[in-house]
Amino acid sequence: MANFKGHALPGSFFLLFGLWWSVKYPFRYLCQKRKNIYLGSKAGFQRLEFIEGIIKVVFALIGMMAEQFVPDGPHLKLYNNEKKQWNYLMNWQHATMYLFYGISGLVDIVTHSTNVLPEALDRMMLSLAVFVEGFLFYYHIHGRSMLDFHVHQLLLITVFGGALCIFLEVFFHNSIVLEMFRTSLCILQGSWLWQIGFVLYPPSGSTEWNQEDHNNIMFLTMCYCWHYAITLLIMAVNYTLVSWVVHTKIMQVPSMEIGLLKPTEREQESEDEI
Amino acid sequence: MANFKGHALPGSFFLLFGLWWSVKYPFRYLCQKRKNIYLGSKAGFQRLEFIEGIIKVVFALIGMMAEQFVPDGPHLKLYNNEKKQWNYLMNWQHATMYLFYGISGLVDIVTHSTNVLPEALDRMMLSLAVFVEGFLFYYHIHGRSMLDFHVHQLLLITVFGGALCIFLEVFFHNSIVLEMFRTSLCILQGSWLWQIGFVLYPPSGSTEWNQEDHNNIMFLTMCYCWHYAITLLIMAVNYTLVSWVVHTKIMQVPSMEIGLLKPTEREQESEDEI
Amino acid sequence: MANFKGHALPGSFFLLFGLWWSVKYPFRYLCQKRKNIYLGSKAGFQRLEFIEGIIKVVFALIGMMAEQFVPDGPHLKLYNNEKKQWNYLMNWQHATMYLFYGISGLVDIVTHSTNVLPEALDRMMLSLAVFVEGFLFYYHIHGRSMLDFHVHQLLLITVFGGALCIFLEVFFHNSIVLEMFRTSLCILQGSWLWQIGFVLYPPSGSTEWNQEDHNNIMFLTMCYCWHYAITLLIMAVNYTLVSWVVHTKIMQVPSMEIGLLKPTEREQESEDEI
Amino acid sequence: MANFKGHALPGSFFLLFGLWWSVKYPFRYLCQKRKNIYLGSKAGFQRLEFIEGIIKVVFALIGMMAEQFVPDGPHLKLYNNEKKQWNYLMNWQHATMYLFYGISGLVDIVTHSTNVLPEALDRMMLSLAVFVEGFLFYYHIHGRSMLDFHVHQLLLITVFGGALCIFLEVFFHNSIVLEMFRTSLCILQGSWLWQIGFVLYPPSGSTEWNQEDHNNIMFLTMCYCWHYAITLLIMAVNYTLVSWVVHTKIMQVPSMEIGLLKPTEREQESEDEI
Repeated sequence: MANFKGHALPGSFFLLFGLWWSVKYPFRYLCQKRKNIYLGSKAGFQRLEFIEGIIKVVFALIGMMAEQFVPDGPHLKLYNNEKKQWNYLMNWQHATMYLFYGISGLVDIVTHSTNVLPEALDRMMLSLAVFVEGFLFYYHIHGRSMLDFHVHQLLLITVFGGALCIFLEVFFHNSIVLEMFRTSLCILQGSWLWQIGFVLYPPSGSTEWNQEDHNNIMFLTMCYCWHYAITLLIMAVNYTLVSWVVHTKIMQVPSMEIGLLKPTEREQESEDEI
Repeated sequence: MANFKGHALPGSFFLLFGLWWSVKYPFRYLCQKRKNIYLGSKAGFQRLEFIEGIIKVVFALIGMMAEQFVPDGPHLKLYNNEKKQWNYLMNWQHATMYLFYGISGLVDIVTHSTNVLPEALDRMMLSLAVFVEGFLFYYHIHGRSMLDFHVHQLLLITVFGGALCIFLEVFFHNSIVLEMFRTSLCILQGSWLWQIGFVLYPPSGSTEWNQEDHNNIMFLTMCYCWHYAITLLIMAVNYTLVSWVVHTKIMQVPSMEIGLLKPTEREQESEDEI
Repeated sequence: MANFKGHALPGSFFLLFGLWWSVKYPFRYLCQKRKNIYLGSKAGFQRLEFIEGIIKVVFALIGMMAEQFVPDGPHLKLYNNEKKQWNYLMNWQHATMYLFYGISGLVDIVTHSTNVLPEALDRMMLSLAVFVEGFLFYYHIHGRSMLDFHVHQLLLITVFGGALCIFLEVFFHNSIVLEMFRTSLCILQGSWLWQIGFVLYPPSGSTEWNQEDHNNIMFLTMCYCWHYAITLLIMAVNYTLVSWVVHTKIMQVPSMEIGLLKPTEREQESEDEI
Repeated sequence: MANFKGHALPGSFFLLFGLWWSVKYPFRYLCQKRKNIYLGSKAGFQRLEFIEGIIKVVFALIGMMAEQFVPDGPHLKLYNNEKKQWNYLMNWQHATMYLFYGISGLVDIVTHSTNVLPEALDRMMLSLAVFVEGFLFYYHIHGRSMLDFHVHQLLLITVFGGALCIFLEVFFHNSIVLEMFRTSLCILQGSWLWQIGFVLYPPSGSTEWNQEDHNNIMFLTMCYCWHYAITLLIMAVNYTLVSWVVHTKIMQVPSMEIGLLKPTEREQESEDEI
């Protein structure tokens, strides 16, 4: 959907995941550092990853449905036999992007509910999904107006940077620095998709952007950096809050938290960790 | 051979190897995980690698022969003295690609039958063979029609991705994630070579592809992703089957399998592993 | 500030940091190698990193102020409503570069004064700051004269090389080789910024450079390598001096140096290192 | 020197080093594998590296002298005040390339004769020297005829591949696979420099190459791969010879070889290795 909603919808998905990760990863890191066995437990986080996988699949299904069944969508029809041409290729491409995120979600579910698959496969598949998004965008934005091309090119830097970061995580497992870098790129991608929506499809009433003015390009390049600076600020605030919660609240009432894990699980885990 | 068979032949080689790897690597991973000493034994897999090396050499020879001795081939003649020009350079280039896969096969054979060479050399040489393929293709496709250029460019992404993946395997030995990534790229390359054959040399009766239509390029880019999605599906099915076989069949009848290894070998291995 | 001072100011910052690092890193390496517990102590170097962070923030503030409040600067006004155009985008972009170095300085301060943040985050953030500098420069130099473009392109090699080097340091912690490589790129960047200033804004009295002469480009490419050769010479001299000081002076009077650390700290450290 | 000798001279240097390395590295690897303490000793190889450093410096000096003092060379004069232009920039650029190899040789000498410098610095510096060669070539070959450009571009692949390989060796110390990869690229560079000499400055009597024929470019691309195939053949032969020598000759007469090391050294080493 080449309109405002078509950018705001995936943008919101990325923002939600990014913001959630900016809480989850610091929380796990700080719990493990303080050797809090109940909150930093592997089984607890595996269940979280499992739920994340389900949400990913749901988001991907929503995205694919939206791309296919909007009024001016392809409705699952790939080739228009009357006009002898492909039918709504844009929507099909976007649906393909969502498809790979869906596959990544499925791999998450299987990896974290059974122990058949190697653990690092979830990140490998996520890295591939992000790469496919970037790959399709790369050939997607060919021949557009200068400004349109530029804002999508900036998006591509985030996307390929993210794919590379997640690929590195395959080898550097549970590296908090990489995980936070990934988180920051995820939030940046979300907020930048919203920005693209506002730039290319300005809400009625506001003036259009001049698509060929070089100054607009220079401003948006800088604006992209400011988005990242604000992303870093949000993450710093979340990190501080999480750190404060872990430090003050949880440390004082460990007994209350223990109740969240059933006794059988607790035993199983301590066996796992031995 | 710039025709359908010239793409289908190497495509089949890659498909065969890819499908075989999609069974072999999960099998080895799951056996080693369950500490099945008889099926996951190093010596057994070394023999498999040895046989793979021989098959690689045979495939490379078939390919080189086909490129040289087809009716409109160079028949080992490099320079045409009458016309004062090079003779069938395309075929010579393809033969060179096969040559490097042949060298890789030879290195496999020597590495896994003697212990003179360092073990990681087989992957280094395979990485080089894949790189040489990509390198020759890169200069090969210069100045072709838009669609021809594009489908080969997509092939190059697979090829260079594969070369990089195998290069990483030099350092991350026996990493199941990298091995499965390599497998997926190998199957993708095979199926994409078939696709290129159908696009550029459509079977008689079907309509030709419009070489300059931008929509065709957009469709093929997406089609490439679908090939990859199907590749992932095939690998998931194979993984499930292998997992099921390892879990149910083999675990119950270990005594039957032991007979496959001669007693002397078994002793040697247990020494190796100590 | 597109003038001589706008290049000399950041150039001096980089030179100062580079020269300081060319003393600090050899010193730490040689002390740790000789197991000098007092000089090579972790706490001592953490305090240095803390001070470095403060200086970085101060430098970044000076840079931002200079870009904003020079006579022909934007004075914090981003959009000129009368002329309907962006206001001094160049200065805003430069200020954004300084901003990210400032953020990196803040992260240094927090990382080395508390133990809440993961230690490698300071290098990750520095790497990002250097990358942002390169990223903004990359879109900055579009459409300039040939010579101007070329000297800034050479700068970009240093900048992206530096970002990559620091990113590797996230994984290879305290690697003296990478740290010295980073130091050399930092000095090179500083001296090359001065060179750019002299080339593009020659001091009054000297002849202007011909902006379109290809020979000037070839000379400057070579000149860039000479800058690097001189950088290596300076680093070799500093390394020799530091090595000589560590060897002769300090080894003889260990007792004098001990006094620099308070007794309580010394105890704390020895606990840390156990 | 843009003539045949200007390519043959460095080509010979690279060939000599490459062929020597194709003997040295397999020898060290096989000795260390067989735990031959006398031949595989660290001190012995450090002396070799020391001698290599001296030879590198000598080669670099010869190269710089040749570039400066050939009849049509700059004779150390950089700027021609009469013609108001730079003097023989080509020769100055080539001399700069040799300079960095000279610096690399100096670092080798210091690293392997004292223990002040970190050991990996010799590879870092060699990597930089190779990178500088590639960097200068990259800006060097701008605007040449198609064939000239292409053969130098192929050279660049070898050069940057070599720089990357040596950079990896900084982190993967004594990896025989990387060392042999480096060796192969070094031989390839040497033989390709000779090939460039023959293509661009054909010996009198033979026909000139058509500089704009696309077929020549396709042939030379393939020819480059054949050079590499022959390089691999030479290395395989040398490896086999070294392996045979280590296996048959040395194993039988260990006592004879021991005499090559003075008693004091032997003691020192065994201490080192404990």
